Amino acid sequence: MGQDKKMVESITSMDVDFAQWYTDVVKKADLIDYSSVKGCMIYRPYGYAIWENIQKILDGKFKATGHENVYMPLFIPEGLLEKEKDHVEGFAPECAWVTVGGQENLSEKLCVRPTSETLFCEHYASIIKSWRDLPKLYNQWCSVVRWEKNTRPFLRTREFLWQEGHTMHATAKEAREETLRMLNIYADFCENELAMPVVRGPKTPSDKFAGAEDTYAIEALMHDGKALQAGTSHYFGDGFAKAFDIRYTDKNNQLQYPHQTSWGVTTRLIGAIIMTHGDDNGLVLPPAVAPIQVVIIPVAQHKEGVLEKASEIRDRLLKAGYRVKLDDSENTAGWKYSEYEMKGVPVRLEIGPRDIESNQCVLVGRHNREKSFVSLDTLETSVADKLEEVRSGLWEKALKNRENRTSACTSLDEIKKTLDEKGDGFIKAMWCGPEECEDKVKEITGVGSRCIPFKQEKIAETCVCCGKPASQMVLWAKAY
Amino acid sequence: MGQDKKMVESITSMDVDFAQWYTDVVKKADLIDYSSVKGCMIYRPYGYAIWENIQKILDGKFKATGHENVYMPLFIPEGLLEKEKDHVEGFAPECAWVTVGGQENLSEKLCVRPTSETLFCEHYASIIKSWRDLPKLYNQWCSVVRWEKNTRPFLRTREFLWQEGHTMHATAKEAREETLRMLNIYADFCENELAMPVVRGPKTPSDKFAGAEDTYAIEALMHDGKALQAGTSHYFGDGFAKAFDIRYTDKNNQLQYPHQTSWGVTTRLIGAIIMTHGDDNGLVLPPAVAPIQVVIIPVAQHKEGVLEKASEIRDRLLKAGYRVKLDDSENTAGWKYSEYEMKGVPVRLEIGPRDIESNQCVLVGRHNREKSFVSLDTLETSVADKLEEVRSGLWEKALKNRENRTSACTSLDEIKKTLDEKGDGFIKAMWCGPEECEDKVKEITGVGSRCIPFKQEKIAETCVCCGKPASQMVLWAKAY
Repeated sequence: MGQDKKMVESITSMDVDFAQWYTDVVKKADLIDYSSVKGCMIYRPYGYAIWENIQKILDGKFKATGHENVYMPLFIPEGLLEKEKDHVEGFAPECAWVTVGGQENLSEKLCVRPTSETLFCEHYASIIKSWRDLPKLYNQWCSVVRWEKNTRPFLRTREFLWQEGHTMHATAKEAREETLRMLNIYADFCENELAMPVVRGPKTPSDKFAGAEDTYAIEALMHDGKALQAGTSHYFGDGFAKAFDIRYTDKNNQLQYPHQTSWGVTTRLIGAIIMTHGDDNGLVLPPAVAPIQVVIIPVAQHKEGVLEKASEIRDRLLKAGYRVKLDDSENTAGWKYSEYEMKGVPVRLEIGPRDIESNQCVLVGRHNREKSFVSLDTLETSVADKLEEVRSGLWEKALKNRENRTSACTSLDEIKKTLDEKGDGFIKAMWCGPEECEDKVKEITGVGSRCIPFKQEKIAETCVCCGKPASQMVLWAKAY
Repeated sequence: MGQDKKMVESITSMDVDFAQWYTDVVKKADLIDYSSVKGCMIYRPYGYAIWENIQKILDGKFKATGHENVYMPLFIPEGLLEKEKDHVEGFAPECAWVTVGGQENLSEKLCVRPTSETLFCEHYASIIKSWRDLPKLYNQWCSVVRWEKNTRPFLRTREFLWQEGHTMHATAKEAREETLRMLNIYADFCENELAMPVVRGPKTPSDKFAGAEDTYAIEALMHDGKALQAGTSHYFGDGFAKAFDIRYTDKNNQLQYPHQTSWGVTTRLIGAIIMTHGDDNGLVLPPAVAPIQVVIIPVAQHKEGVLEKASEIRDRLLKAGYRVKLDDSENTAGWKYSEYEMKGVPVRLEIGPRDIESNQCVLVGRHNREKSFVSLDTLETSVADKLEEVRSGLWEKALKNRENRTSACTSLDEIKKTLDEKGDGFIKAMWCGPEECEDKVKEITGVGSRCIPFKQEKIAETCVCCGKPASQMVLWAKAY
């Protein structure tokens, strides 16, 4: 019981200090360790396995929609990065530069890729010649580097893992369709597999990706009421194609510029999972990406037949395709309960001598810790049901948190008052269009524009900031 | 037919110029493209898919033997790299250094990882405390950078993809067992899945990995008679543990240093596949890693029912778990034959109106291009048989090439004469132990030591170089 207590005591309560709670969880759930390079994380086996599960699901969705994986170089020569003006302005300030290779100073310094538009464009210029070569639907899984000043595990790190899709299309229409197709794949993944509600919509012009014509985002609301951008999809038009001289011959034998997209999600999603679903007992993982979906804890495991039965159950569940762990270590059952709650395992299965006599076991969902007794005859179905109960329970809780923390406001005073009274959250308010109004909202109330939701509502006739006629509802929030 | 001819003409014959043939194949089979960074390759979809298949198979074998994946930072601070003396001496000359981050000069320069022993050791020092924490069986899939002067696609590049396993064990015995277990996993994978015979054994001391006590390798012989090191596994003893102060408390409450291994294979394996199995028609892929295992070519596809039947066959084979492509493009059947031969697709399936009438189709194995007519009733089994026929055919051919090119020699003159008469290949010859004899063999005959095969033969009583008594048979060859 000493160990039990120690684990529980060692987590800060999320309502006392959310930031410290987050740091405690990423460490105590064995997700990461810090390295001696500031801002570069070590992804430990349990944390990396979550990413592997995210990769596997998304990679399947990308391939099912015709995308192919490639691998581009880690380095971008300075001259190549400079080819598109807006792009280099956006990224140059946070580049890490290789200046020495093999003990010699390089004649041209190399940027460690912060994103790979320029590399993809250079390659596309060499392989796209005819309309027959289009579309090109490429994706890459890799790590990228951005020299951030302030870093936090998963949320903002100097090196992070991601995927970046880069596609080329014959027409603007096709490219725009692709941009939204991928945004929706991300959004559906977040909502269905991660049980995390998101708002879909374009960013305001000031928040567009460097070099993009339009940037779309999915925005999630964390437990503490701060927003988190969970994925982005960009439409580039033919700007990069012109800068990199990518042209194809169309069916009428005319030279044309193709139209381009890029889209990405990162290991930030793990941060989003933690802050959407976690509680004071630690991590809570949605079943689709949990490295362990069911942990089996034998009760009174020294008694005859208990471990045999527990192993038999493990084998049955493995065979049914679940990710299962049987913990038959010498630790107490209580210690084990705390341990796997901390690690966010969605379902705990307890089995002891009396259960065996009754041909049953206990299932406990991580989201509400309620026990149900189920027959061993129909175990596989009961586990499926319990996992779905956890998923839908997490979804309902997250949705309720978002609803409770979303307010419509018609003036800056109302925004300030709402934030004071209800705490952080999403603010829905009208905006007339110019960056000055955006900046002023942020300056006065502290919330920034997150996106212009596809699902518009008419909150008012006029801009929340300047009072001029306004037709767009913007979603505002403080953000990670 | 014009396109047909063009494709065939555009490959250099392997017997005329093997190096040019290799370069032609990697380009014409769409495996890679060159980037503007010297020595950094672009892995195109078809080339990257081979690597994905290799990853999937090996990752399964690693996990089945208890290994877990992690991800370590891309950067190693100079001070960390310097902690183990032999290691830094080995790698410092070929490091790429980041000296500027976020527009500021870094106070300590960062090496882009050439290998990650130092990062793993730093992490192990923070997480290994007790015998309960051992063994640690970690693996990482990533890219690494070594600033090579001369580069060739897949074989020697400044950036390459690999996996690096790093494990820690309580005893030297366990660590030595792990070293050989992983060497054998690599060797069995090369032999069974890649149909590529390998010789297993330790490297001579001069050829050990920087910082290792023992290095073991698997050595394959390419079509041209040059050797290629296809994988390595290292035993480190407790050298790194001491340098990084990694200690654990054993069951008797005594502080002990753990014992360490590391092991890796790289995208070089793709180069090995090309040079082991390829022919004058292009690439030849072993079925286990082929992105397309069966390509379906409809004959007279404009005739009624042909494309319908071809699609039906594709769906049947997809359902049976094969990687299948139906090429219903407008290109001629002849052009398609050349195209998929160039890409090394193991089995071609032809189906035309007369075949449909007879309820049959044609299967052609890429290794010998022999046709067989098979009934559509038992298509799945026939395809399985044909794929196995390709695999075993490749194996037999590669084994025969190695046998024809392996010679036992008892003097330096005999080595020179053998190489002159038979061309490059493996030379089996005795060695008495010192580096001087190794160097002299290389200087005079051009072949270097590849490994000391586990399967020893007594070629002679004395060293092939100095004539002193010798008990070890070494395998010698020119190498990639």
